[in-house]
Amino acid sequence: MSKVADILPGLISEYSKVLKRSEIRELLKITRLPGMISFAGGLPYPGLFPVEELKDIVNAVLDREAKKALQYGPTEGDARLIDFIVKWMREDEGAEIDKDYILIVSGSQQALDLVGKIFINPGDSIIVGLPSYLGALQAFNSHRARMIGVPVDKQGMDVDKVEGILMEYKQKGEKIKFIYVVPDFQNPAGVTMTLERREKLLDLCYEYGTIVVEDSPYRELRFEGESVPMVGAMDKKGYAFSLHTFSKILLPGFRLGWIIANKAIMDKLIMGKQPADLCTSPFSQSIVYEYLRRGLLKPHIEKIVKLYREKRNVMLQALEKYVPKDSGIDWTHPEGGLFLWVTLPEHMDAEELFPKAVEKKVAYVMGSAFHFDGSGKNTMRLNFSYPSEEQIDEGIKRLVDLFKEEM
Amino acid sequence: MSKVADILPGLISEYSKVLKRSEIRELLKITRLPGMISFAGGLPYPGLFPVEELKDIVNAVLDREAKKALQYGPTEGDARLIDFIVKWMREDEGAEIDKDYILIVSGSQQALDLVGKIFINPGDSIIVGLPSYLGALQAFNSHRARMIGVPVDKQGMDVDKVEGILMEYKQKGEKIKFIYVVPDFQNPAGVTMTLERREKLLDLCYEYGTIVVEDSPYRELRFEGESVPMVGAMDKKGYAFSLHTFSKILLPGFRLGWIIANKAIMDKLIMGKQPADLCTSPFSQSIVYEYLRRGLLKPHIEKIVKLYREKRNVMLQALEKYVPKDSGIDWTHPEGGLFLWVTLPEHMDAEELFPKAVEKKVAYVMGSAFHFDGSGKNTMRLNFSYPSEEQIDEGIKRLVDLFKEEM
Repeated sequence: MSKVADILPGLISEYSKVLKRSEIRELLKITRLPGMISFAGGLPYPGLFPVEELKDIVNAVLDREAKKALQYGPTEGDARLIDFIVKWMREDEGAEIDKDYILIVSGSQQALDLVGKIFINPGDSIIVGLPSYLGALQAFNSHRARMIGVPVDKQGMDVDKVEGILMEYKQKGEKIKFIYVVPDFQNPAGVTMTLERREKLLDLCYEYGTIVVEDSPYRELRFEGESVPMVGAMDKKGYAFSLHTFSKILLPGFRLGWIIANKAIMDKLIMGKQPADLCTSPFSQSIVYEYLRRGLLKPHIEKIVKLYREKRNVMLQALEKYVPKDSGIDWTHPEGGLFLWVTLPEHMDAEELFPKAVEKKVAYVMGSAFHFDGSGKNTMRLNFSYPSEEQIDEGIKRLVDLFKEEM
Repeated sequence: MSKVADILPGLISEYSKVLKRSEIRELLKITRLPGMISFAGGLPYPGLFPVEELKDIVNAVLDREAKKALQYGPTEGDARLIDFIVKWMREDEGAEIDKDYILIVSGSQQALDLVGKIFINPGDSIIVGLPSYLGALQAFNSHRARMIGVPVDKQGMDVDKVEGILMEYKQKGEKIKFIYVVPDFQNPAGVTMTLERREKLLDLCYEYGTIVVEDSPYRELRFEGESVPMVGAMDKKGYAFSLHTFSKILLPGFRLGWIIANKAIMDKLIMGKQPADLCTSPFSQSIVYEYLRRGLLKPHIEKIVKLYREKRNVMLQALEKYVPKDSGIDWTHPEGGLFLWVTLPEHMDAEELFPKAVEKKVAYVMGSAFHFDGSGKNTMRLNFSYPSEEQIDEGIKRLVDLFKEEM
C-alpha cells in the first residue's frame, strides 16, 4: 500500500500538469514586508470603499429580501441587476443589448475562465498582447491555449501585426479562436487603443471570422481625454464579447462582474457557469443592485477618478523629477486605470533588479510576467492606486536610485 | 460578412459542445407556478435563515475590518476561517488535518468542478452512483469524464460492484480516476453508507490505487441514529478528499464551501482555483467566520435538524397513510438530509407521469435525471426541507392519487 502522493502522478489530469502558481501572488508576499513601498499589486485603494453606505444597504437588503438574497439564485444572475446594467450600458455606451445579452459572473476572472472553456480546445490558437493581463494568460493557459503574441505600443495592440497573423493562419487553413484585448488603460501597460485600431480590429474579425474578447475592468476610470467607444458597442454583428467587473469601480470583495455577449453564445456561457458554481452570490448581487438603484455608483466613480488621477500625477511628476534626461528610460502616460508601464534600456533586466529593489524597500512586477513568451525583460509595471502620494514619490526615488546604480 | 452565429460552430470548444442545461433548473421554472406544491427543488427552508444575527454580524464586520473584507483575498481563503474549520473537523470528526489541508471554495459546486479539472482528462473513467447528485454529474460531464455507474441501495453504494469494476479495469490496464460518493443522506436517494461499506471502499482504494471523492453537504443534518465516521476521517493515508458547504447548514446565498484534501494535491487545487475566480468572496468569509466565532452555528444546526426531522416525519407519515398496501411502491427512510427517494413499480415511468403531476399541482424530480445512463425511470426524488408540513401532506396525497390512477 503506497502513500497517496505516490499514486497521484498517475491520476491527475494533463490540465493540472500545466497549472502554474501566479508569480504575482507569490511576489505579493514579499511586498507585504514592513517598510516596503509596493507598486506591485493591483489593488483598489481601500480607503474609498463606501463602508457607511454599505452598512445601510446591507441592513435594508436583510430587512426587505433576506429570503431571496440568502437563498440560491438563477445562474444568469439577479434580473434586477441585469436590467440595471442593460440600461447603463445602453445609455452610457450605446450598446444595443437587452437582458439576454448579460450574464452575471463571480468576478471577471470567472468570465475569462468561461471564455476559455467555451472556445479553447487544447492546442487552439488565440492572439494576446505582449504584454497582457496575467490572470487572463493564466486562465487561457489552464485551458491549454496556444498563444500568439502581438506587441502593444502606446496606441494599443498593433492591429497590422494582427492582420498578418490572421492572413498567415487563413493560408494554413487554421483558426484563431479569439483576440484578447484590454482596450482601455490596459493592464499592465496603461495604454488605450485608438479608435482607428478598434475599427480595424473589428473589420479584421468580420473578414477572417474570429471574435474579440474585450476585457474592460478599468473603462470607467478615465482621468482625462476623450473616451473611445467600446469595441463591443461599435460592433453591430455580435463579434465582440466584453467582460466587466465591479472590482475596480466599487470593490473586489463581492466578486461580482458581468459578461456582455451575443445571444448566440450566451446559452453556452450559462451552461459553462452552471457546473462551475451554480450561481454568483445572490447576497452580493442584492447589495450591489441596491447600491446602483440608489444612484451611488456614479458619484463614487467620480471620487475614485479624482484620487487616482492625483496619484497618477504624483507618479508621473516623480518620474520627471528623478529620472535623468537621456537615460533611455521611458514610461507610459495612462489616461486612466491603475497602472503605468516603465521601459528600461534594452540591456537592463527588471527581474534581476527585483531583489535589489526589495533591499531598497520598493517593489514592482517585472514586465516579463505579463509576456507569455518570457520577453519584456526590460519592462516593469507600477501600480499607483494603492500606495499613498508620499509613498509614490519616495518609492519612485528609490527605484530611480537603483536604475542609476545599475547604469 | 456573416453573422456571428454562423461562425460560432467553428470556434466553440469540444467542451462547450457537451454542456447541457440542467434539467432540474429548467424544471424548477414550472414548479414556481401558482398553487404548485413542489418537492422538486433542493432548497433549504429560508424561514430559518438567521437574519437578525447576520445583521449584527455584518455591521460588526464592516466596522472592524471593512478594508480587508471588501478587498481581494488569498486564493486559499481567510486564515481565520480555515483555522476554525480545522479545529471543528478535528474535534467533531477526528480528522487528522491542519490548515494546509483546507481550501475555501465558492460553494461545493466549485469543489466538484475543481476535482474534475484536477483529475479528469477527456475520456477518463470515474465511478459514480446510480443515482448521483446531478450537479456532480454535470461537473464531471463538463470535463468529459466516462462514467461507470454503480447501484446505490439502502446501505449506500454497492462496494462489491465497485470491486468488480476495479478488478476489471486493473486487468485491462486502465485507471479509475476516482470514486464519487455522498455517504451521508445521499442526494438524491437519502440513504447513508454503512460503516462496513466505507471501510471496504477505502481498502479498495488502497489496493487498486484510486481515490474517494466524498461529497458531504448534509452530514451535520442527522435526525436520528448513530453517526458513521466520515470516509475522509477513517482514511489515514490521504486517499479520500471531502467536499463541504455552508449552503445546507447555514445558507446558500454566500456561496461558501471547503475542500479537505491531502497536501499532495492541495497545491494543484489552489492552482486550479486561481484562474477560475482568484478567490472566494472575502466579505462572505468574514461574515461566516464571525458567525462561527460567536458560537452560533451549532445551535442553528440543531434548529434546522429539528424542523427537517418534523418535515421528514410528515412526509413518511403521509406516504404510510396514502399509499395502498401491496402497491409495490417503496421509499427510503432518510436519517437526515433533505431528500427521500420513491421507487415505483417497474412498469411506471416518473418522466411520463410528470406532466400529469403538474396538472395536479404537485412537482418532483424524475429519478432518471440522476442516472447518467438514463436508467431509474420508475424513481423520483422528493424534497421535504422547503415545503410546509401542510403542503407535504397535501402534495403526497395528490401524488398518490396520480399513482393510483396509473396503476
